[in-house]
Amino acid sequence: MTETTTLADLPLREDLRDEHPYGAPQLHVPVVLNVNENPYPVAPEVVADIAAAVARAAVGLNRYPDREFLDLRADLAAFLRTESGAQLEPEQVWAANGSNEVMLHVLQAFGGPGRTALSFAPTYSMYPEYARDTLTTWVTGRRADDFTLDVEHAREQVRRYRPSVVLLTSPNNPTGTALPLATVEAVLEEVSAVGGVVVVDEAYGEFRRDGTPSALELLPRYGNLAVSRTMSKAFSLAGARVGYLAAARAFVDALRIVRLPYHLSAVTQATARAALQHSAALLSTVDELRHRRDETVAWLRGNGFEAAESDANFVLFGRFADRHAVWQGLLDRGVLIRETGPAGWLRVSIGTADEMQQFRTALQEVVAQQ
Amino acid sequence: MTETTTLADLPLREDLRDEHPYGAPQLHVPVVLNVNENPYPVAPEVVADIAAAVARAAVGLNRYPDREFLDLRADLAAFLRTESGAQLEPEQVWAANGSNEVMLHVLQAFGGPGRTALSFAPTYSMYPEYARDTLTTWVTGRRADDFTLDVEHAREQVRRYRPSVVLLTSPNNPTGTALPLATVEAVLEEVSAVGGVVVVDEAYGEFRRDGTPSALELLPRYGNLAVSRTMSKAFSLAGARVGYLAAARAFVDALRIVRLPYHLSAVTQATARAALQHSAALLSTVDELRHRRDETVAWLRGNGFEAAESDANFVLFGRFADRHAVWQGLLDRGVLIRETGPAGWLRVSIGTADEMQQFRTALQEVVAQQ
Repeated sequence: MTETTTLADLPLREDLRDEHPYGAPQLHVPVVLNVNENPYPVAPEVVADIAAAVARAAVGLNRYPDREFLDLRADLAAFLRTESGAQLEPEQVWAANGSNEVMLHVLQAFGGPGRTALSFAPTYSMYPEYARDTLTTWVTGRRADDFTLDVEHAREQVRRYRPSVVLLTSPNNPTGTALPLATVEAVLEEVSAVGGVVVVDEAYGEFRRDGTPSALELLPRYGNLAVSRTMSKAFSLAGARVGYLAAARAFVDALRIVRLPYHLSAVTQATARAALQHSAALLSTVDELRHRRDETVAWLRGNGFEAAESDANFVLFGRFADRHAVWQGLLDRGVLIRETGPAGWLRVSIGTADEMQQFRTALQEVVAQQ
Repeated sequence: MTETTTLADLPLREDLRDEHPYGAPQLHVPVVLNVNENPYPVAPEVVADIAAAVARAAVGLNRYPDREFLDLRADLAAFLRTESGAQLEPEQVWAANGSNEVMLHVLQAFGGPGRTALSFAPTYSMYPEYARDTLTTWVTGRRADDFTLDVEHAREQVRRYRPSVVLLTSPNNPTGTALPLATVEAVLEEVSAVGGVVVVDEAYGEFRRDGTPSALELLPRYGNLAVSRTMSKAFSLAGARVGYLAAARAFVDALRIVRLPYHLSAVTQATARAALQHSAALLSTVDELRHRRDETVAWLRGNGFEAAESDANFVLFGRFADRHAVWQGLLDRGVLIRETGPAGWLRVSIGTADEMQQFRTALQEVVAQQ
């Protein structure tokens, strides 16, 4: 019977019947620029320290990990102090297996049946999945044609939907657009009036341009604000799955209620802590990637394409009558980018100098053939 | 404002208002026998291989992990073949950050609002949390006074509640009771009739006594059956957080829909695979722990206590008019056990020979003073 069982034979939730496992294609091609990874491998001295830290932790793996992981939370707080000047207690930091688990905790605590989560499209395609997983109603307002967020529109949407959770993505994925603090603050004021919380998703925050602020600056004044970050992007640690957020202690306490106990393994804690000892080395690639991002935007615009302003490690560009054909043409040339965002646009992650050269060459070939 | 924000100021789900973060006390005392950990640290040669595997993985941590982790799933299938003779394809195995995340995936896929999960009390105290997290109605039937499960009662409860998910724990936590396959099969037949699935939670399966079967034997005949296991107990890897289950491929496909993408880090995959290469060494402590478990049961009964039959690495014993006083008395003597299970009973994990001697001495002192 097992061999012939199909999904139709099992009591899958009705709203999941037409769903597929989420995720970009994991293809083995020479140039992978589709999931906004940092193209630079972890440096040998950091690898050595991670391995040593895991070896120390491995002896005690027969015991459950520290459920509160306050040492890691202290290290993350210290990093945010260095990076953005934020003054945070360890108890104001939360971490999980990737930002997506952090966001799941937020929606498990503050969403649920009869409640609404609001964001502004185009934005990160995983958000509706978190809402679905937590039975939260998912609604979106819209971003302007240049992907900025109109404050009055945003406030209107908050008044209209009275969301318990608002997700503001800055820099936004897949557009790269950072939000001015004044916009974040205006939304926060409106959300406070309806009793909700705001998460500013700064997964790409370390790539922001000089002069672009972090919403961490607003934390001291808003108890219903959380700012989420990740070690997946700037830190080159996508494979380690460490996302985190900073917020008021009470906000974090709410997440502690819904987290599964021992959700963060001793191995993950050891890996993250060892990496954070090397944050300067790990983040040394950020300036180079920012510079190449700006170059990529300039090159695209100089070659007849549109390219969105970007404070992230990717660029949304276009527009193409048949974007799928362009995506496929690039893939045929060994360059994998992401078919995402509004119709006509494609997203390319910033890779090494050589990878970006291959991307440019392939793109020119593909477009010439169309 | 952040400093003065309290939970009451935040839109926490109403049903979570009185909840606290789940988990046993993490106290630093000489003898820790409260969370059914394996008392033996990971052997040096296994630690070395884990560290080497993590070092190899760490170079590539800038990339996201393999979302399908079929190599790990193949290794787990191979282990189950060795351990129980189960013939499984890698696609019939699923894993996550601890059995609790595996169980969350099961309830996210097959539970939800308007649906019911059924188990039989006394049983594992985390189950109601998974139900709460997934908005699934939680109901329990009862076990008999000797903690066995009456087949007719179980079938009645299935007919009464028509659950979409039934959790059968064997060996049961906190009682240690294994279920005969005939009981599992009778429940499976009844649950099949109402269109539900059954998960047999064998977290402690490797500790079962000779002649006690695994529900893995039933897998070829039931597409709505899953058998869950963990590397936390017999494998001495609680800190690594690797739980898994085996089921029909379609059952696993349902879990793939609800899992967060990249939920299992490259570091976790590397750690688990390195450990599985040493499964014989890691499981070498199991026979000793089973023997000491049987000795502990005999000693307790020989000293005027009741002790439940156990196929696990713990023993439920009693009964005490004031079990909290006994628990506290043991803790005062440096021995931490678990205050759980039906009134009057306490649970002790099986530790080293020395730890069990300290437990026996402390228990006799405490009881003598009452």
